[in-house]
Amino acid sequence: MAKTAENTRERIIEAGARIIHKNGFNNTGIKEILDEVGVPKGSFYFYFKNKEDFGLQVLEHFTARFGAMAREVIEQPGVSPLLRLKRLQRSFRDFFEAQHCTLGCPVGNLAQEMGDLSPAFAERLSTAVDAMAAMYRGLLVEAQRVGEISRDIDARETAYFIVAGWHGALLQMKVKKDIGPLDHCLRLTFERVLGVPVPDED
Amino acid sequence: MAKTAENTRERIIEAGARIIHKNGFNNTGIKEILDEVGVPKGSFYFYFKNKEDFGLQVLEHFTARFGAMAREVIEQPGVSPLLRLKRLQRSFRDFFEAQHCTLGCPVGNLAQEMGDLSPAFAERLSTAVDAMAAMYRGLLVEAQRVGEISRDIDARETAYFIVAGWHGALLQMKVKKDIGPLDHCLRLTFERVLGVPVPDED
Repeated sequence: MAKTAENTRERIIEAGARIIHKNGFNNTGIKEILDEVGVPKGSFYFYFKNKEDFGLQVLEHFTARFGAMAREVIEQPGVSPLLRLKRLQRSFRDFFEAQHCTLGCPVGNLAQEMGDLSPAFAERLSTAVDAMAAMYRGLLVEAQRVGEISRDIDARETAYFIVAGWHGALLQMKVKKDIGPLDHCLRLTFERVLGVPVPDED
Repeated sequence: MAKTAENTRERIIEAGARIIHKNGFNNTGIKEILDEVGVPKGSFYFYFKNKEDFGLQVLEHFTARFGAMAREVIEQPGVSPLLRLKRLQRSFRDFFEAQHCTLGCPVGNLAQEMGDLSPAFAERLSTAVDAMAAMYRGLLVEAQRVGEISRDIDARETAYFIVAGWHGALLQMKVKKDIGPLDHCLRLTFERVLGVPVPDED
C-alpha cells in the first residue's frame, strides 16, 4: 500500500480502537469512526472487507499495543520474576486508574461481546488470551527456577487462573468505579494463589 | 397491573433476557424482542419507560433467576460449607456445558458492556456483584467456623476474588468453546485460593 493509504488505514484503526474500547464493537458504527477521521464511507471498503474484518484488525492493534506495554515491564533486566509480575499488574492498574476505572481490557471486553457471535473473533481472542497466559507462565517458571515460588504450582494452569482473576477484577472495577478490586486481585494473586507475600519494590 | 398486562410484561422480559444473554444489550433491538413475543411496538412504552428501564428490569430478572438457582445449592441442609461451595460452581459449570460453552454470566456480561455507559446499570450491577460475593463470603465464614479453611483467610476479599476468577474463566470458556477453564478455576479456587483439596462428593 502507498504511504498515504497505509496512514489513512492506521488512522481509521486507531480511531476505531478508541471508540470500540469505550463503547463496544456492536455499539460502534462505521460512520461514527469515519466521521472522526474525516474519511468518506466509500473508502472504508478500500481498506477493510467488512466490519468484522475491520474489528479483527482493531483487535490486532490492541494486542500489539498492550503486548508492547507488557513486554516493556516483564523484560526488565536484573529484576526478579515476581517483582516483574507485580510491576506488570501495577502498570495496568495505574493505566486504569488514570482512565478513571473505565474501559477494561480490550481482549476481555471483546471475549465477552464477540465470543459467541463470531468464530473468527473467538479464535483470535483465544490466541490473545493464550499470549497473556504465556507471559504469566514464563514469569512463574522463572520464579520457580530461582526458588521464589513452589515447584508444586502448575505454572500453565495458574497463569490462566491469574489472567481470569484479573479480567474478573476489571469487571468489578468498571461497575464500582473503584480501583480497589485490582489492588485486592494483585495482593491475593501473590498471597493466596502463589503463596508468597507481595514483593517489595526495593 | 391487570393480570394480562402483567403477563405480557413478563413475556417481553423473558424474551428480552434470552436474546440479550445471547447477543448483548446494545446489540438487541426492541423490535426484535417484540416480534418474538408478538406484541406491537407501541405497547412496549406502556410497560417500560425506555430501553434502559427495560434493560434494568431484565437485569433484575437475571439476578432473581440465577440467585434462586444458587440459593437452591448453598442452602442444602446437612452439607458442609465447602461442599456447597463446590456444588455451587459445579451447578453453573454444568449449566454452561449444557449451553455448549456460550452465554456466560449475565451480570459479568452486562458489567463489561454497560459499566461505562450507564450509571444506573453500573449501580445495579455493582449490587449484583456484591450479592454474588456475599454468597461466597457466607460459605467461607461458615467454613472457617467449622474449621474447613484457615481463619487467616479474609472471607470478604477472598469472596470477591473468587467471583472475579469465575467471571474471567467464563470469558476463556466463551472464546475457547471449552469447559476446561471452569474446571481449572474450580480446582484452583480450592487448592490455591483456599489452600484445601477439592472436597469429595461422598
